[in-house]
Amino acid sequence: MDYGKQLGLSSDEFNDLFDNFEKRKYKGRKYFTLPDIRKGIEKGTVLVDGRVIRGYPKTPRVFVLKKGLKSYFDDKIAIEEKMNGYNLRIALIDGEIFAFTRSGYICPFSTSLVKEKMDLDSFFSEYSDYMLCGEIIGPENPYTSHSYPEVDSIDIQIFDIRKNSSGKSMNIDKRKKICEKFDIKQVRFFGEYKLENAVEKAPKIIDRLNKQNREGIVMKSIDGKKQLKYTTKNTHQDDLSHAFSIPFDYGQDFVFSRIIREAFQSVEWDENYKQTQKRAHELGESILLPFINSIRQVSHEKTVGEHHIIRGKPKSVSNLLEHLRDQGLSIKIIEDKNIEDKRVVFFIKESHSTTDKIKHYLEGGKKDI
Amino acid sequence: MDYGKQLGLSSDEFNDLFDNFEKRKYKGRKYFTLPDIRKGIEKGTVLVDGRVIRGYPKTPRVFVLKKGLKSYFDDKIAIEEKMNGYNLRIALIDGEIFAFTRSGYICPFSTSLVKEKMDLDSFFSEYSDYMLCGEIIGPENPYTSHSYPEVDSIDIQIFDIRKNSSGKSMNIDKRKKICEKFDIKQVRFFGEYKLENAVEKAPKIIDRLNKQNREGIVMKSIDGKKQLKYTTKNTHQDDLSHAFSIPFDYGQDFVFSRIIREAFQSVEWDENYKQTQKRAHELGESILLPFINSIRQVSHEKTVGEHHIIRGKPKSVSNLLEHLRDQGLSIKIIEDKNIEDKRVVFFIKESHSTTDKIKHYLEGGKKDI
Repeated sequence: MDYGKQLGLSSDEFNDLFDNFEKRKYKGRKYFTLPDIRKGIEKGTVLVDGRVIRGYPKTPRVFVLKKGLKSYFDDKIAIEEKMNGYNLRIALIDGEIFAFTRSGYICPFSTSLVKEKMDLDSFFSEYSDYMLCGEIIGPENPYTSHSYPEVDSIDIQIFDIRKNSSGKSMNIDKRKKICEKFDIKQVRFFGEYKLENAVEKAPKIIDRLNKQNREGIVMKSIDGKKQLKYTTKNTHQDDLSHAFSIPFDYGQDFVFSRIIREAFQSVEWDENYKQTQKRAHELGESILLPFINSIRQVSHEKTVGEHHIIRGKPKSVSNLLEHLRDQGLSIKIIEDKNIEDKRVVFFIKESHSTTDKIKHYLEGGKKDI
Repeated sequence: MDYGKQLGLSSDEFNDLFDNFEKRKYKGRKYFTLPDIRKGIEKGTVLVDGRVIRGYPKTPRVFVLKKGLKSYFDDKIAIEEKMNGYNLRIALIDGEIFAFTRSGYICPFSTSLVKEKMDLDSFFSEYSDYMLCGEIIGPENPYTSHSYPEVDSIDIQIFDIRKNSSGKSMNIDKRKKICEKFDIKQVRFFGEYKLENAVEKAPKIIDRLNKQNREGIVMKSIDGKKQLKYTTKNTHQDDLSHAFSIPFDYGQDFVFSRIIREAFQSVEWDENYKQTQKRAHELGESILLPFINSIRQVSHEKTVGEHHIIRGKPKSVSNLLEHLRDQGLSIKIIEDKNIEDKRVVFFIKESHSTTDKIKHYLEGGKKDI
């Protein structure tokens, strides 16, 4: 079927849009991804074998939780846990199952993983035009590093089912029932609330999640159309620690945004001087300590970067490493062994730009600002 | 005389460059300023009545002091104090004295001030083609707010004498003698050192200046051609406090650059865990506390902004206020009184963009990041 039609665009509009798509290849299969949002079509939208797989849209965020809820919703709200991992879309193309990352790459590791961990055939036999949207979590994954006590190595939890071509979300109750029917794990569900109750409840959930070092919540209208997210202090600070371990690789927007979240949260929580000061001290440590650590690493001739462990079938692990290298990443393998029938690899995504900048300054290089 | 010739440019090159100049007016006098560095011509360069007044160039900075000194200089070095105020160039145009801000504006307040505080006629009678470059410091000025115990209200200290048209610096010894001869105040001079001695001495000076809550040092080759700057911890943190009191008005570069300075200084000073942690806590406080304070201000219906006090002849104060308003600034006068023959005004440069952004988020406005 025609891509333009599926996207609801005229053929001229589609041709314009198509110029922005980038060509990719996966096991000999050609596909196209959209690197940025355009004409309302989400970043990460994929065109493959006559099918459109819409990108997963950004979830809007508020800095002030109670007022945000009130100004954004007007009816019943579902609250779910926002997990700290990476976003994945699982879809059926030409009878074959693929897992797409947020930016639209087919990820060999994730594709193999979801096929292994989930019984997808029965789901897709009934819902072939839908994608499962979820989060890959756990300490052993190639993209993020947050760990959860209940997740040993790696896991996937679904938070949305969407129509492939339109990206339209399923009603939440329906999605929950379907997932239960096909035995598909979902993110933690905190409940459905009337607006005025949600305003009371949401801060309490955030407080509990913060104490457990978990990320935050997504609040949704029951029809799945509206979403809003809010995150915990520990998440903001962990994000900053991560960013400042490779400071010259991160956008300054990323950093600034976390500082904004911290400032507004402190005011909304009505913190006293002591609490505010504690938050400020933690913030300072999240910024400065990893940065100093990375400078010391480089001064000892080490290359800094993101550390990951992955565990999987030997074939899917080697496909993943090849896939990451194909994307231009510099992968340094620290340890590589087989445990039972799995290959376990500890590797670093080396950050040359941070390493080189730090080296330049350590040697007395100047900066004209 | 021809502007292009004074700048050492062909007439085609000058015509190209001239397109970038912006037209300004001061008491009926037309002049032109260059808003950004172009073709090696400094930002803030002024064309007025057939004269070129070159902009004051950015002084390069190092993040690592000792290595920086070694890689940048190879001979004797003069070390001077870097004062925390605003940069001013004083020049003679058509027999009249004008003071130019860093970006090339003729500042009515500063012009009146330097004429009042300094005996410039005798200097310019001998050096009519030269500009005096200095720093306006003290608690009572319209651009910065750092105060020094030895400066009551406002003062000017010279750190450079440059040829108007070429911007070439005078040899340091010569400049010092000339300033002494004409009784012109200069910035504190720490001495001339051989390179290997400077490397030992500079960190000690920085340590002392930091304890006194002063800004830092500029290191110069004796011929005045090369300059390098380095600043104290207290300065980095004060800069951050200031930026985060109006966070949405400051470039994120500004913030990031101060964090880099802190991280490298901590490593170069070889701080132990306790010292590093203290620095991190102070950094966190510099960022979060003023931000939280500004949110609270806005939640109490106040407009945030920079606070200034100025004191001067009634005419020059009213000219300044008009000049600031002409630049599009929103000036709110809090107090306005006469003390002896001076007018003293306490005013706020209101920051509408920070105020509006904070208000938007406080009302539950969302952000799509």
